[in-house]
Amino acid sequence: MARDILLLLFVVPMLSQMPFSSLALTQDFCVANLLLSDTPAGYPCKPQVLVTANDFHYRGLATAGPIVAPFNASLASAFSKQFPALNGLGIGATRVDVRPGGVVPLHTHPEGSELLFVVEGTLSAGFISAETNTVYMKTVTKGELFVYPQGLLHFQYNVGSTTAVVFSAYSSANPGLQVVDWALFKSSLPSAVVEKVTFLDLAEIRRLKALFGGSG
Amino acid sequence: MARDILLLLFVVPMLSQMPFSSLALTQDFCVANLLLSDTPAGYPCKPQVLVTANDFHYRGLATAGPIVAPFNASLASAFSKQFPALNGLGIGATRVDVRPGGVVPLHTHPEGSELLFVVEGTLSAGFISAETNTVYMKTVTKGELFVYPQGLLHFQYNVGSTTAVVFSAYSSANPGLQVVDWALFKSSLPSAVVEKVTFLDLAEIRRLKALFGGSG
Amino acid sequence: MARDILLLLFVVPMLSQMPFSSLALTQDFCVANLLLSDTPAGYPCKPQVLVTANDFHYRGLATAGPIVAPFNASLASAFSKQFPALNGLGIGATRVDVRPGGVVPLHTHPEGSELLFVVEGTLSAGFISAETNTVYMKTVTKGELFVYPQGLLHFQYNVGSTTAVVFSAYSSANPGLQVVDWALFKSSLPSAVVEKVTFLDLAEIRRLKALFGGSG
Amino acid sequence: MARDILLLLFVVPMLSQMPFSSLALTQDFCVANLLLSDTPAGYPCKPQVLVTANDFHYRGLATAGPIVAPFNASLASAFSKQFPALNGLGIGATRVDVRPGGVVPLHTHPEGSELLFVVEGTLSAGFISAETNTVYMKTVTKGELFVYPQGLLHFQYNVGSTTAVVFSAYSSANPGLQVVDWALFKSSLPSAVVEKVTFLDLAEIRRLKALFGGSG
Amino acid sequence: MARDILLLLFVVPMLSQMPFSSLALTQDFCVANLLLSDTPAGYPCKPQVLVTANDFHYRGLATAGPIVAPFNASLASAFSKQFPALNGLGIGATRVDVRPGGVVPLHTHPEGSELLFVVEGTLSAGFISAETNTVYMKTVTKGELFVYPQGLLHFQYNVGSTTAVVFSAYSSANPGLQVVDWALFKSSLPSAVVEKVTFLDLAEIRRLKALFGGSG
Amino acid sequence: MARDILLLLFVVPMLSQMPFSSLALTQDFCVANLLLSDTPAGYPCKPQVLVTANDFHYRGLATAGPIVAPFNASLASAFSKQFPALNGLGIGATRVDVRPGGVVPLHTHPEGSELLFVVEGTLSAGFISAETNTVYMKTVTKGELFVYPQGLLHFQYNVGSTTAVVFSAYSSANPGLQVVDWALFKSSLPSAVVEKVTFLDLAEIRRLKALFGGSG
Repeated sequence: MARDILLLLFVVPMLSQMPFSSLALTQDFCVANLLLSDTPAGYPCKPQVLVTANDFHYRGLATAGPIVAPFNASLASAFSKQFPALNGLGIGATRVDVRPGGVVPLHTHPEGSELLFVVEGTLSAGFISAETNTVYMKTVTKGELFVYPQGLLHFQYNVGSTTAVVFSAYSSANPGLQVVDWALFKSSLPSAVVEKVTFLDLAEIRRLKALFGGSG
Repeated sequence: MARDILLLLFVVPMLSQMPFSSLALTQDFCVANLLLSDTPAGYPCKPQVLVTANDFHYRGLATAGPIVAPFNASLASAFSKQFPALNGLGIGATRVDVRPGGVVPLHTHPEGSELLFVVEGTLSAGFISAETNTVYMKTVTKGELFVYPQGLLHFQYNVGSTTAVVFSAYSSANPGLQVVDWALFKSSLPSAVVEKVTFLDLAEIRRLKALFGGSG
Repeated sequence: MARDILLLLFVVPMLSQMPFSSLALTQDFCVANLLLSDTPAGYPCKPQVLVTANDFHYRGLATAGPIVAPFNASLASAFSKQFPALNGLGIGATRVDVRPGGVVPLHTHPEGSELLFVVEGTLSAGFISAETNTVYMKTVTKGELFVYPQGLLHFQYNVGSTTAVVFSAYSSANPGLQVVDWALFKSSLPSAVVEKVTFLDLAEIRRLKALFGGSG
Repeated sequence: MARDILLLLFVVPMLSQMPFSSLALTQDFCVANLLLSDTPAGYPCKPQVLVTANDFHYRGLATAGPIVAPFNASLASAFSKQFPALNGLGIGATRVDVRPGGVVPLHTHPEGSELLFVVEGTLSAGFISAETNTVYMKTVTKGELFVYPQGLLHFQYNVGSTTAVVFSAYSSANPGLQVVDWALFKSSLPSAVVEKVTFLDLAEIRRLKALFGGSG
Repeated sequence: MARDILLLLFVVPMLSQMPFSSLALTQDFCVANLLLSDTPAGYPCKPQVLVTANDFHYRGLATAGPIVAPFNASLASAFSKQFPALNGLGIGATRVDVRPGGVVPLHTHPEGSELLFVVEGTLSAGFISAETNTVYMKTVTKGELFVYPQGLLHFQYNVGSTTAVVFSAYSSANPGLQVVDWALFKSSLPSAVVEKVTFLDLAEIRRLKALFGGSG
Repeated sequence: MARDILLLLFVVPMLSQMPFSSLALTQDFCVANLLLSDTPAGYPCKPQVLVTANDFHYRGLATAGPIVAPFNASLASAFSKQFPALNGLGIGATRVDVRPGGVVPLHTHPEGSELLFVVEGTLSAGFISAETNTVYMKTVTKGELFVYPQGLLHFQYNVGSTTAVVFSAYSSANPGLQVVDWALFKSSLPSAVVEKVTFLDLAEIRRLKALFGGSG
């Protein structure tokens, strides 16, 4: 009965505003409805009546993702598109497995900072500051953290003899990932433009375009 | 004629971008269209041509809401669902009438701070800080203010002999309301789990589950 | 003893970072330290050990402020400078008493939306939209609300025969207040410049400069 | 082939969440889909597959907009409605051409600060602070900047003998524009209300209503 | 030499503004200077010349924190006070070790959402929604994620026979932690007030005050 | 006299809170005090009594900055360090002069989007999306705009026979600037690490380290 009274408490003033409605009543959370268009603040919310405990649970990082050939590393993501409950909550995650000799190459996350937690193994982790081009680099091992500030170029590579497993959290449900090699050499950016904007040698550009599968 | 020129000023560059449109032209405000899905930033906007002065006016707090039995207090809300003009504006309000002996029990607003203004009567108002468990508590009377910082557990109860009337404003158009008693004893959270996570005695849990109408 | 353990829990990892510190340990709230410089996000915080329940309690709106002559209305404010506990919480308030015939003249709050709650009396409340110059205006009486979206020109005036008392909440601890008459006629803006930028008649400008005490 | 692996990397965990989807995969940007309802954070995004380089390019400021008669100045805008790629990016622009003797009259931008860059000519630029009614005013010439803080009343007028051309950038993709003369004299705000809330003389109000085309 | 030119590039226009300065030149990051007062946006920044790679590296979660007696669980934190490089980056973390039979009792984080990653073992994780008091609860095991939306009451307890180790990330460098049992029973909140605001039996309150070390 | 009353209006309730104060009374703006430590939200504010109209005026972009040798382009900045009035306002600017054949090489702004306005000449402007590595590239000429979304790799180069002059506005008073060539080849990042994280040939790395003046 107290439940009924609570219902009245919220529904009655609402009815006085609008003749009829069967809308979701809350926004304790906003599980993404990926079938609607994204907005600058994230996806519209799935109706609350369709939300279950399963929405808040994600198994996609329990196993490593597929290996990306040249890097000898794999990536599995938990962002709002894979784990829609993260939508609007300002947090996301990835799991990266880096085999011996493997690397997570130079990249940025345009929309978030990254907090790296080493689950297994040992890596070298570093970033370069924008204004002074200072290099901040450390060896990070099991149980330790390293943080990459938003938008700065960074990387990590395995310095041990076993696969390193990393769980990274981000200050965004969709921080983005821009790999410099992919932007230059996997894209259709013409080689002459790459040369112009990077001062790299044209032969070297063509070698890397071939390696990464880019055109132009 | 100046009006026509103004129209040209805005419409012409727009037409050069898109062949035809009858869209709302501004976002001085964003009255919620409750028929569309909510987003993390609030509801989509009602088309401006349908907005009238009535949208910005709300009568729902002029009278007390229905009494909630065990608390001997009533609640009326002016959040974006009841008063859609608040959508996107970062402000909301409630009116709470607390009868002699009545109480607004321990609760939080997960999404906003609360500024309490006493319209009539006298209450005891308090909150507990998170990190140090310090209690901040005062007697607050007609015309006075008390502020509860975002997300912290707080309460108020009538310490006078007449009904106390409170107008509270929030730093959100939808600050949420989580009553601890309801979360534990009105929900389906199994009694054994309540015991596990609160250290309350199982008999006491069952008594309160009965009082508040919970299952499990 | 549990308290001691909790203390250890937080203090030990901190000590491993810094040799010695007696800093405030939390930011459940940030009561303004008005003796330090303001920042774009608000004032630095008063040390938590100096904070008491009194900081969260404010009596300054319990009585009307002094009457401002030409308007026949009074203003009392509860912003972060008067009520430092509001600092950082995104909420503020004023009390305005408007005598019969009195007015709160055309003004804006550059940094926040305003939610007006009528405590006593009856007012006419209105605002003008920016892009379409539409007027949204209503008579608002005891217990009712009216909302003014952020930054838009608005006003209210008493349409009853008794003093109207208004409690307004804002979506900012320091929303600002820009009265158009004061900006033009109480300031040192030269009359010729006022004429240039408003198309008002010079004689009228001089009359109002005299009324409001401006120079130039 | 590396491209295929990348595809797998993102699509596979996604498929495990949802049986089928042809959604846009990213939000590196959110070009406005003006056919959908605006939200408090901006318009929903145009599907990425429809986005081309043309979306990020805008020619609408290359020529002056139409002259607004009483001001002898013209305005062309690049906000999210004219240049949808700005949606969600927190930046917008206008071009204003002020003829000799012309003026950009007293106005505010409710939703953003303005950074004025003089492309040609010389202007007097000024704003009035809200709390102290201080006037900040300077002569600004070719290549120089002047900044107007968010929401404050400001203006500029040509003090040279040639047309002044201004490029202004704003801290919002839709900062709004509220011209005080238009709000008062081009709108339907009744003359008696204008008199009440501004202390202007009724005859002067009627003269300006006639000049700007307002009713009431 | 190019370095010198870059220096000139930034320093020269700066000198024209201010006669002399040896300030840090960037804010690629803002490592907290814990010796200065906190602000609503976080701590002031440590001068960049004092920042080294060590600042971005944190070892405090590599081992479990001390056990908290009644809960049979331990906590180690990586927030801005322990790991100052997180300041301003919108991300933080904890490590929680829950022994067999142990529990992380009912609590909230007032300032952030939590993304739980199970490093070892199996837990039951759940939260209760605010508006509908719906319980969302799952068993979560090694490598899996569960997300708790900001500010909502939640808990987890070990359902396995080995210690469960959890790495949690938060959408804030200082999300706060409010344990309901501590707020009520470890604090000085008078037992009669606890009774009033929770409807708990006075005897039960006294039993728990004794257990948790509260006064009142 | 009205001025005195206004003063009373604000000062009296303030005095009732604090015994004495000569603080700045407003935050219509927050001109940076560069002598105090930066915070995550920007610099503390210069006392308002020291602020003059000169603070809002900046001449530093009226002439081109010094040429940076390998790029044949020059940069002058108007960010909060050069133009302290921008502090907290969410907007900044640069002027870039690109000589015939010159280039603004591949770079990002970690903290803001860029809106490019061509003052003179013709450039090729482009960026690469993060998730799909799509190239968005256009020829942009006098009076036209191009927008680079926050954090994405972009560039521009002169495609005309005269110097191109660009005025760029940013959605931040301090958007940052990370030039990829400088991060890799002007820094102390060891050549072997550059090779590891970029797949560039070691000889090529050494050639570019020599060109840009890097060590390691």
